[in-house]
Amino acid sequence: MGQNRILTLLSDFGLSDPYVGMMKGAIAHVNPTLTVIDLTHLIPPQNIALARFALMAAVPYFPAGSVHVAVVDPGVGSARRAIALAIGTISVHPASFLVGPDNGLFSGVLSQRSALAAIELTNPRYWRTANPSSTFHGRDIFAPVAAHLASGVPLEELGTEIAPESLMQFNLAPLVQTGNSITGCVQATDHFGNLITTIPAAEIANRDWSVRVREIQLPGQQTYSDVPSGELVALVGSHGWVEIAVNSGSAQAALNLEFGASVEIVLGN
Amino acid sequence: MGQNRILTLLSDFGLSDPYVGMMKGAIAHVNPTLTVIDLTHLIPPQNIALARFALMAAVPYFPAGSVHVAVVDPGVGSARRAIALAIGTISVHPASFLVGPDNGLFSGVLSQRSALAAIELTNPRYWRTANPSSTFHGRDIFAPVAAHLASGVPLEELGTEIAPESLMQFNLAPLVQTGNSITGCVQATDHFGNLITTIPAAEIANRDWSVRVREIQLPGQQTYSDVPSGELVALVGSHGWVEIAVNSGSAQAALNLEFGASVEIVLGN
Amino acid sequence: MGQNRILTLLSDFGLSDPYVGMMKGAIAHVNPTLTVIDLTHLIPPQNIALARFALMAAVPYFPAGSVHVAVVDPGVGSARRAIALAIGTISVHPASFLVGPDNGLFSGVLSQRSALAAIELTNPRYWRTANPSSTFHGRDIFAPVAAHLASGVPLEELGTEIAPESLMQFNLAPLVQTGNSITGCVQATDHFGNLITTIPAAEIANRDWSVRVREIQLPGQQTYSDVPSGELVALVGSHGWVEIAVNSGSAQAALNLEFGASVEIVLGN
Repeated sequence: MGQNRILTLLSDFGLSDPYVGMMKGAIAHVNPTLTVIDLTHLIPPQNIALARFALMAAVPYFPAGSVHVAVVDPGVGSARRAIALAIGTISVHPASFLVGPDNGLFSGVLSQRSALAAIELTNPRYWRTANPSSTFHGRDIFAPVAAHLASGVPLEELGTEIAPESLMQFNLAPLVQTGNSITGCVQATDHFGNLITTIPAAEIANRDWSVRVREIQLPGQQTYSDVPSGELVALVGSHGWVEIAVNSGSAQAALNLEFGASVEIVLGN
Repeated sequence: MGQNRILTLLSDFGLSDPYVGMMKGAIAHVNPTLTVIDLTHLIPPQNIALARFALMAAVPYFPAGSVHVAVVDPGVGSARRAIALAIGTISVHPASFLVGPDNGLFSGVLSQRSALAAIELTNPRYWRTANPSSTFHGRDIFAPVAAHLASGVPLEELGTEIAPESLMQFNLAPLVQTGNSITGCVQATDHFGNLITTIPAAEIANRDWSVRVREIQLPGQQTYSDVPSGELVALVGSHGWVEIAVNSGSAQAALNLEFGASVEIVLGN
Repeated sequence: MGQNRILTLLSDFGLSDPYVGMMKGAIAHVNPTLTVIDLTHLIPPQNIALARFALMAAVPYFPAGSVHVAVVDPGVGSARRAIALAIGTISVHPASFLVGPDNGLFSGVLSQRSALAAIELTNPRYWRTANPSSTFHGRDIFAPVAAHLASGVPLEELGTEIAPESLMQFNLAPLVQTGNSITGCVQATDHFGNLITTIPAAEIANRDWSVRVREIQLPGQQTYSDVPSGELVALVGSHGWVEIAVNSGSAQAALNLEFGASVEIVLGN
């Protein structure tokens, strides 16, 4: 069962230092047969909001049973808890797992999937060392614990059970719906400059819709090339959220909207 | 046979979002035992020219039977075809494969190797979902199709056969040869600032030669350290093309030549 | 024995070109079952000092028997030697290995571990080709040689034995101790802007200590969040060296200290 289990890594460690490599070394010490996949390590330092989004966006594309480690951890070495969660739905076996600090990183995933169980990582037997560094729990606690989980160690072995309701939340502004208008906000900007909103596809399914932003109204389209090159376009992105883009260009450069900036959808028929 | 097959990925997705990770999740869903190798994901957005070069440069260093996925895809969701190609030479078995959009990305590889067969990817059985996103075929079509190919699914199962002659071309200016002069152009600039031309080593084999660019004449050398640190040097690069470099520095910074800029070789004996 | 052996890669090749992918192709040609882990490829071009630090920092976190390839190689194609080293301690089996150019890259690791044996890579049987490129030994010599080593080829098969004492050194300024003061220097700055000094934790164990730099005195702490957000903090970093950081910020931005800049520790009781 431990064969071909997948362990993913997400962090703000960057790629210029050997920190990610050290985590992989710690994983290989536990089990060199695991398949380790990087989600991204270029989360801006300490940016829990973007890490929360990236993890929520990526988790659905991995097989059940995968173990996802996320380390954006400004409170490392302080009183914040180190945790592991089993997530899933009744219909999917086995459960998948999340491992990292309890600081709201996982609240995006948990808005879409249930926490079946939550454990505080208090059992040093599954750490790299019983005396972990106070500044690099990714290497000394999270990576080795995740490698043990992916190798078949039961979740409850890893420490003390805690209530999923006690987990830290990272909350974005809720959607506001009035008449034929829904107002959400920008929750992420990607590498292409696409502005990804908090408005899910389900809100506009089978409706005409357009986005209103900075005095401009953009009718909803299917794909980037539905508008001429260089023009703004609104569509449902591949992650399932309403997104503002520029065909072969950058909506971020065109509109300069910050994280959290308000975006309104106007619904038609 | 599906064991230890290699699947490579090249894209303009960048490394700051989880898009590449999602493709690897889609691959792992099909076959978690494949060896997945990143060529690069830092192709500038929508830059088919550089992607074409990078793929052409890398493919020869992989074992026969490898499957190469390339996704630089400004026309995603439009009428451009999704394709898979078998490439090879009569002497090498098994064939290798290319998977991606039909937009000229593969024309560099195809200038060096024959297309043995070409398929339009019309069989949704091998996609991640029968209803793929209109903006992320890398995740929903190309990655899973490539994983099936690398796992032993026959190419012809993936869709409808098409004529290799019908594939889109991306053409660079042809070499111009007059007397003892050959004029090509810059086809790529790398991370070190090396300027890589379209003039292949075969054109200058066993001849004295020099490069003429911006009023400067540089005699052909063997390696960077054949000139003092900080000085311009012309040589045959590791990829087999004439290249202009600066020893321990950047020729791009020194000469500021754009993609497509003209470069002349003067041949001696 | 060749199963699940780990091969790590460190270079200044960057991630925008397919050079790292080509090295992995060359490795896969030799043995596609090896586990290949990237330490970093974003060492600034030709910066042997930072590569030396990154490798020294990472090697201790990998299982015994790992093979570490490092390629920061401004002298490629010149008279500098290509080498492979067995490193270890009497108590750890099997030995680990270092492979790369003889230019001081390995002198950090060798300040912590003994060279059990050193070989100049003169046997072309284990190269990718008997006629390697004069500019890319990473692909044509170091990667394939390392893949053979990781697959069980004995070190002495790879070439001619040389004296470990003959290896090139890359020396940093030695620590200067006077009374209750120790002066070292900055040996690396990481992605977070943490300034990592040459002063090891052992020098301050069980003592009160503070760092004196740019007229500021910083008492030694345990972790970043021991000071308010945005403030300078001195601590022992996860790599085991005294480090200057800013909680949720960048010490490099705050202090602008160059590589090699002097840092003083003042010891108390």
